[in-house]
Amino acid sequence: MTTVSAYAAPSAKAPLERTTIPRRPVGESDVLIDIKFAGICHSDIHQARDGWGEGIFPMVPGHEIAGIVTEVGPGVTKFAVGDRVGVGCMVDSCRECDNCKAGLEQYCAKGNVGTYNALDKNGEPTYGGYSTHIVVDENYTVGIPEGLALDEAAPLLCAGITTYSPLKHWNAGPGKKVAVLGMGGLGHMGVKIAHALGAEVTVLSQSLRKQEDGLKLGADHYYATSDPKTFEELAGTFDIILSTVSAPLDFGAFLSLLKTDGALVNVGAPEEPISLNLFSVIAGRKSLSGSGIGGIQETQEMLDFCAEHGLGAEIELIEASQINEAYERVLASDVRYRFVIDTATI
Amino acid sequence: MTTVSAYAAPSAKAPLERTTIPRRPVGESDVLIDIKFAGICHSDIHQARDGWGEGIFPMVPGHEIAGIVTEVGPGVTKFAVGDRVGVGCMVDSCRECDNCKAGLEQYCAKGNVGTYNALDKNGEPTYGGYSTHIVVDENYTVGIPEGLALDEAAPLLCAGITTYSPLKHWNAGPGKKVAVLGMGGLGHMGVKIAHALGAEVTVLSQSLRKQEDGLKLGADHYYATSDPKTFEELAGTFDIILSTVSAPLDFGAFLSLLKTDGALVNVGAPEEPISLNLFSVIAGRKSLSGSGIGGIQETQEMLDFCAEHGLGAEIELIEASQINEAYERVLASDVRYRFVIDTATI
Repeated sequence: MTTVSAYAAPSAKAPLERTTIPRRPVGESDVLIDIKFAGICHSDIHQARDGWGEGIFPMVPGHEIAGIVTEVGPGVTKFAVGDRVGVGCMVDSCRECDNCKAGLEQYCAKGNVGTYNALDKNGEPTYGGYSTHIVVDENYTVGIPEGLALDEAAPLLCAGITTYSPLKHWNAGPGKKVAVLGMGGLGHMGVKIAHALGAEVTVLSQSLRKQEDGLKLGADHYYATSDPKTFEELAGTFDIILSTVSAPLDFGAFLSLLKTDGALVNVGAPEEPISLNLFSVIAGRKSLSGSGIGGIQETQEMLDFCAEHGLGAEIELIEASQINEAYERVLASDVRYRFVIDTATI
Repeated sequence: MTTVSAYAAPSAKAPLERTTIPRRPVGESDVLIDIKFAGICHSDIHQARDGWGEGIFPMVPGHEIAGIVTEVGPGVTKFAVGDRVGVGCMVDSCRECDNCKAGLEQYCAKGNVGTYNALDKNGEPTYGGYSTHIVVDENYTVGIPEGLALDEAAPLLCAGITTYSPLKHWNAGPGKKVAVLGMGGLGHMGVKIAHALGAEVTVLSQSLRKQEDGLKLGADHYYATSDPKTFEELAGTFDIILSTVSAPLDFGAFLSLLKTDGALVNVGAPEEPISLNLFSVIAGRKSLSGSGIGGIQETQEMLDFCAEHGLGAEIELIEASQINEAYERVLASDVRYRFVIDTATI
């Protein structure tokens, strides 16, 4: 057991503060990672403020982790000391169910073990990336290719894979029209990735405030959803709408923007139930779907894809002491496009 | 213009009564059909009672039509006098949009022309199958194979195609587990067709009242949704759930019965919006989808499939004078499984 520095929410809704936490000894198949950068995901705030309930406190958020391997267990075969690695939203799963065997650990039948705010197989709470070090099984660790800067790579571990996985699953690519709903941390990666996959990309954002950025990141078109004309003009346009927003929406209106057989895929998750008229999906054989992060192998594939296409996240690097302020700015949509904590400042 | 006998609702919510209606002259590509049988679909009741709003009255319902061709227009090539034919839910569409060209006339970009309660391209109201004769463009008419009795074939024109189309689209077949939700007019055909396609079929019905029928029609399993244990036992079981019910459901509970990547496909349509927690689709990358009838070519394919497998509807033949009583019995779920009007009694 090692004690390391971290930033934690001591209780639900309390500000995060500097503390120390235990990390387990490096086991047979574990790697010890010297965390260099940790992204701030909107879901960190949901959980630290107990928006989803059942939070485990003190809570060290952070599931967008990039660092360097500094020690490996005796059974480790995939990584060596000095390797650049990342850890995303999960650090373990049952490894035996059909989904785990199929590389869909994110949908593990027994539930995967979250990187934080979860209990590991020994019943110990997991602590996330707002910390100087973490010990993770090598099978839940991915390599960060040389072509990606570590700070810009960190957010790919959640925002990158969460958008890459559904875009691939729903076949975004040449000849397909993809709308990305929301231009935040997830959305801006959705735009980059959908563009790199060869799709024609439209951003649907509340306002045109970030239009210039969107077009620069790879969007072909940019529309404001606050303008009712958007819904007239774009009716029946898209094969895929990737919704990255966690606010409740008029889902009927967005479904009307899909072509026949189109899919509205939610990676954002409002806390409240949504209301939907089923005629919105019956007319045009449409789907309201969802997707959660991605599998470990797929996360590696995503990182390799992003390195090949030069797709890092757009980030604003902060010191650990700015975390609480950063949370407020995320809630106010005042970030372009991801806060990343320089963990040397913890 | 010909005047023919029919049963019509003179105004919203009024009982249906015998009347006469005009039928257009047989045009270049039209066939005149001597209607033999017309099925009673739940949506007839919705519309005759104006549940969906904007009904056109007087209304002659009926979009499950089986009969014999008695006259053909000079340009007709597909049918001859004496042919056994059917007409389903639509009698025209734009024929020019991508969907019409792809055989998806049911999703015509300009809206197809309903068999009743619609206006045709000349602005004249359409009247449905509760009538002695109908004039229909041959391109919206399908042939009923010799192997199918006309009375048992009539309901296939809506209940058959409405279940066949999504089962095919979502790849019901060997190795797939399909649940059919609701054991009514649509549901009983869903069971027969899913079984004939080679899927393992489970009926999810409110009670076990129709269990014996369900197993006889091809279901492998039968569960009561009123029993909470059903939801425990069947969690994560199905590839496809075909919901034929038009009552509001606990959609989260039914989505929990799907495997990863499963689809809950609605062909029933509650009048009120439904409530859904999006985590129900994000966990397991599931879809809440819908499907409406099927295309003309696909309707022919469905009839050929049903003839090949000996799949007629289970019907209760009634006289026209019993229509209003039959409506009440449909609303009380007191029909096994489709009322069919002997139109000789109109």
